[in-house]
Amino acid sequence: MPGYRSALAASKTKLKSALRPLLGALHGAQPGLAPELWGLADDPLRGLTLEDIPLSDLVAQFGSPLHVVRAARLRDNARRFQAVPPGATHGCEVFYSYKTNPVEGVLRLLHAQGIGAEVISPFELWLAKQLGVPPELTIYNGPAKSDDSIRDAVERGIQAINCNHREELPRVARIARELGKKARVALRVNTSVGWSGQFGTPIRGGQALAAYREALAMPELSVVGIHAHRGGQIRNEPELLQYLLEVLAFAGELERILPIPLEILNLGGSLGIATGEHLDDRARRRNELFHVDLPTPVAAQALTIERYLELLVGGVESHYRRLGKARPRIFLEPGRAMTGNTQLLLTRVLTTKAMTGSTCAVLDAGINLAESVRSEYHQVFAVQRHREARSHVHSLVGPICSPGDTLYPALRLPPLVPGDCLAIMDSGAYFVPFSTSFSFPKPAIALLDDGAATLIRRRETFDDLRRYESAP
Amino acid sequence: MPGYRSALAASKTKLKSALRPLLGALHGAQPGLAPELWGLADDPLRGLTLEDIPLSDLVAQFGSPLHVVRAARLRDNARRFQAVPPGATHGCEVFYSYKTNPVEGVLRLLHAQGIGAEVISPFELWLAKQLGVPPELTIYNGPAKSDDSIRDAVERGIQAINCNHREELPRVARIARELGKKARVALRVNTSVGWSGQFGTPIRGGQALAAYREALAMPELSVVGIHAHRGGQIRNEPELLQYLLEVLAFAGELERILPIPLEILNLGGSLGIATGEHLDDRARRRNELFHVDLPTPVAAQALTIERYLELLVGGVESHYRRLGKARPRIFLEPGRAMTGNTQLLLTRVLTTKAMTGSTCAVLDAGINLAESVRSEYHQVFAVQRHREARSHVHSLVGPICSPGDTLYPALRLPPLVPGDCLAIMDSGAYFVPFSTSFSFPKPAIALLDDGAATLIRRRETFDDLRRYESAP
Repeated sequence: MPGYRSALAASKTKLKSALRPLLGALHGAQPGLAPELWGLADDPLRGLTLEDIPLSDLVAQFGSPLHVVRAARLRDNARRFQAVPPGATHGCEVFYSYKTNPVEGVLRLLHAQGIGAEVISPFELWLAKQLGVPPELTIYNGPAKSDDSIRDAVERGIQAINCNHREELPRVARIARELGKKARVALRVNTSVGWSGQFGTPIRGGQALAAYREALAMPELSVVGIHAHRGGQIRNEPELLQYLLEVLAFAGELERILPIPLEILNLGGSLGIATGEHLDDRARRRNELFHVDLPTPVAAQALTIERYLELLVGGVESHYRRLGKARPRIFLEPGRAMTGNTQLLLTRVLTTKAMTGSTCAVLDAGINLAESVRSEYHQVFAVQRHREARSHVHSLVGPICSPGDTLYPALRLPPLVPGDCLAIMDSGAYFVPFSTSFSFPKPAIALLDDGAATLIRRRETFDDLRRYESAP
Repeated sequence: MPGYRSALAASKTKLKSALRPLLGALHGAQPGLAPELWGLADDPLRGLTLEDIPLSDLVAQFGSPLHVVRAARLRDNARRFQAVPPGATHGCEVFYSYKTNPVEGVLRLLHAQGIGAEVISPFELWLAKQLGVPPELTIYNGPAKSDDSIRDAVERGIQAINCNHREELPRVARIARELGKKARVALRVNTSVGWSGQFGTPIRGGQALAAYREALAMPELSVVGIHAHRGGQIRNEPELLQYLLEVLAFAGELERILPIPLEILNLGGSLGIATGEHLDDRARRRNELFHVDLPTPVAAQALTIERYLELLVGGVESHYRRLGKARPRIFLEPGRAMTGNTQLLLTRVLTTKAMTGSTCAVLDAGINLAESVRSEYHQVFAVQRHREARSHVHSLVGPICSPGDTLYPALRLPPLVPGDCLAIMDSGAYFVPFSTSFSFPKPAIALLDDGAATLIRRRETFDDLRRYESAP
């Protein structure tokens, strides 16, 4: 039995090795994305640089691993989201999804550009207040609001409390009654595609409309809008337009029962980024088993922020023009599309291990810091040798001593050696909130602004990891 | 197109609802595990109690969510691992896998029982020193050792540095040479089944033996043993015996080239626990789509600590008896089997949401604290109404506003209402290290010892989450 299993395992390994060149040729080598997409320059002596600073210098200065945030691109993304699309009367009001990248230096910079706060927990509501975000620029979402946090939101009269599901309405009403205030609320509704589960009330079957009737019957609630959020990553026009049409159709139904015109149409977030996309399971498996390159996203075909706004605002404005009504304020809650491509994660090769047909490179960042790369495309650059031929297949793994800690099963790069620095791109969405202190302290975050780098979060120390412990 | 998709989505929902009773009947309702397996008593007035303390009192005292560690069971597990199996000359030397549950109160208690430290990172090596673990009770493993940490390990002369792969050998040798010391090393080897990837050197094809020859040629290294670790969860005797036979066969090969008898046979960890097992993907999907109960593990059939030791120690002793040699010291590195069942996670229902055929209950603990329940069986009890009929299907979701935050897609429980307290069992392995501060601070940990509960880790505060931030 052991002999049989061992022989079987050996045959499998041989079969995979034999099939690799065949399948590799069939699917073709993928080009990967160019560093210029992120404003990176390739200096023959200093390797990849950002605003003329070598990325390897940043690691030398602040340690590895290290998140690097680029202020210029953050400001640029904020401005793009706030622009008035061609032909539109005005633009959107934009609230950044705090949970996507809850780094204060990032949040402050966005707020300085006039971006509001979209928060989903008592902590995030509190944080927005600490950062000086005014009530009218604060929106409170999510299925897990505490009574205390609702009380604070009602008392301060924030822009909107978006009730996640109908059962939340009487809670908000009760708290508003206790405070003798009116709460500005919307209800999250679900279209026929996208997320549902714990989120929202389906438009289908009149469920959302029935919930709105309940809300309208509660005198403590000012029903100010509709909250919708498609979920997933919107990457093309048909996906966006179907979603918008369904929300507008529901707005029409709702407007028939509203005593006053609809004030707010909150269309949520979900816009993807050009340089990343959700990885197909089969592509991931082909990569793992047969070392077939992961498909490079076609960045030029992705929906841009400009086109997204043009379609949304244009769609809403033409809809209301047809009806001869003023259009509601349009709210957006971008997360990934605002910060995803404004940040990168630098990591170093700790050690390498020769394997059959590939080299395993153990990095100082693994799923503890970059869980998202297991399900999303994230470009990787060898910082000091981007010019060299990507001649070797590497399995890039993390340090946490768990078999799941494989970031890239098979990635072609120049042959790596210990000490080499890699840049994992687009770390500005969901890397930081999903990070853990699993056996290794969390890294620092540096902000690169106008050619100068400063620390905006220091790394955890060993002592930090003992801070909350006490003897029994 | 939208109309078509929407109709398709509606049909799918109806089809799933129609198939649910059929598939439910086909697979049968599952009994779940009894609270007594964890020493929980069911009090008609006070709900589930542990050492006569109502679990709901613990949440009232320390807040929710809350990990509760049971000292008695920790000590019991430690004693069981250290026992001499019937017929054996002596037992094993036991090193707890720090990464499994890095809670100082837990580690201190195990060390007080004479259990050593198995560490896999510079932080964990440092922590063991801080907790007063002597060098001879410290083992350093993993693929991500820093030079500084290796230096510390060699300087202090810890029990063993287990080199993860052959490329680590010259690093350890170089550092030992610089210090003028000899380092006690073993090399991690892989059997034909179980983990490989970044871990270990395969026995197959003579690779491990070749690496040992290299080690033996380095005068700075004392080659003291073999390190093996099967990985996965060992849950039955054939799995264990196959693994042991392969390691012993390799030990035979190695002993032919060793200048002195083999001192240490480190057989690693990987023993499962009776009340949990890896969830089959299909079972999970049937549960999600058709609300078929997850299969209850057959706790009585699982390999116990006693039987595991009997087979391992018995196998090793009879092997060396046949050879007419003294047997090597046997080292074990249990993680899950030592602490998995010594801890539970208490969580409260924040809100409920009616859905078609089920109720969604939003908990204050989600994948931010209990990621493991998505791939492992973990029994859940409704703390205050365990006696009531489990008449309702619930989807149990967490608070983090992410579609992946579903702990249990369909679990039958008494109808839950906001405020209800649930106990998620066996939170003592991998819950704590994989936990994040995603939008919600991390919970406290209480130790229950001899009928009294004390805090061993306080909860994170909102201010804690801002501690490392600085203005740009």
